[in-house]
Amino acid sequence: METFSEKRAISQAVIRRLPRYYRILSDLLMRNVDRISSTEFAEIIGSTASQVRSDFSLFGEFGQQGYGYNVHYLYVEIGRILGLDRVHTMIIVGYGNLGHALCNHKNFYRRGFLLRGIFDNNPEVIGKPVNDLTVLSTDVLPDFLKDHTIDIAVLCIPSTHAKEVAKILCQNGIKGIWNFSSTDLSVPKGVEVENVHLTESLLTLSYKLQKDSE
Amino acid sequence: METFSEKRAISQAVIRRLPRYYRILSDLLMRNVDRISSTEFAEIIGSTASQVRSDFSLFGEFGQQGYGYNVHYLYVEIGRILGLDRVHTMIIVGYGNLGHALCNHKNFYRRGFLLRGIFDNNPEVIGKPVNDLTVLSTDVLPDFLKDHTIDIAVLCIPSTHAKEVAKILCQNGIKGIWNFSSTDLSVPKGVEVENVHLTESLLTLSYKLQKDSE
Repeated sequence: METFSEKRAISQAVIRRLPRYYRILSDLLMRNVDRISSTEFAEIIGSTASQVRSDFSLFGEFGQQGYGYNVHYLYVEIGRILGLDRVHTMIIVGYGNLGHALCNHKNFYRRGFLLRGIFDNNPEVIGKPVNDLTVLSTDVLPDFLKDHTIDIAVLCIPSTHAKEVAKILCQNGIKGIWNFSSTDLSVPKGVEVENVHLTESLLTLSYKLQKDSE
Repeated sequence: METFSEKRAISQAVIRRLPRYYRILSDLLMRNVDRISSTEFAEIIGSTASQVRSDFSLFGEFGQQGYGYNVHYLYVEIGRILGLDRVHTMIIVGYGNLGHALCNHKNFYRRGFLLRGIFDNNPEVIGKPVNDLTVLSTDVLPDFLKDHTIDIAVLCIPSTHAKEVAKILCQNGIKGIWNFSSTDLSVPKGVEVENVHLTESLLTLSYKLQKDSE
């Protein structure tokens, strides 16, 4: 069967919304909701029914007048577009507070992101047991990546070392970097980077507060 | 002196870019770069010179042909738009791994975000010293907010309790919520929410990888 994702290109704006749709559909499933109208869905996400219908129409004609959308079907199809019908292997580089927090984030495991290694260059941290893993020295990263198939590296190290470590990761076959290091990385073609700049998010909130106070 | 931020409304898209511009200008200042052309700036941020010129033109005519932009001036002006010319007081609700990581994030302090309280409902955590603070029980949150002027609450608690705690925060005068709790909050008018959905960011990376492998 041909899936809709093979049929059409999906715009960047829609793609940015998909992870959120997916989370909400997942919540609905957990609450045993099996169908939903575009109006109800729009209300949950704070959007409009026409936007929802337009986005969902990209996935084929799932909605039915007077019936709404089948939640499970949408969930599975959006999951497939997001690559969640397969397992991703992951390593964390930098076992500071943030690395620590991410190691214990249960949602990642639930979505099929499996942590296979944790690396740090601090001798006080190397050797520490973390769940079923042990923190390894960043020095052994290239060897580790030769021996293991890893899809994603999570960069939780200071910006001063990020570029250097990113280079090592790319040279050893990493295809995706989830970057928390507060610096922009330049990576070779074929490597994808998703940045999480926490400070920038806080500054956006600051902007909104500043604007309200004017 | 009238500032440009009083002159014009700035579009949402530009606002989303400002925190990043601000970070890059800050890096440039630290490297003692005192002026930069739109082309150089565009290269750093992976945009186009015309986009940069268009965005910066909102802040008045700072650029000069053959000279470029004054880095310090832009830095100060964008900082002002972002509300960084004043100090923000902050509390963290939820002292798990993520709360722990955020408590120790030096960038926040550097940008004028001052942590004034940490709250948790876990008896094993309540009473713990954290830098110059002590973790308090979430039960005392309303009293604390009556006695202290707090601008921003950082929500690092599970989604199951987030809505309930957000309600308490809003009832006690919090104007900004930085929400890490993986759920959408509905707040009264006048309260601003900035969401950080880490799983959604990871799913976006997963999407990119999936697309590359097709």
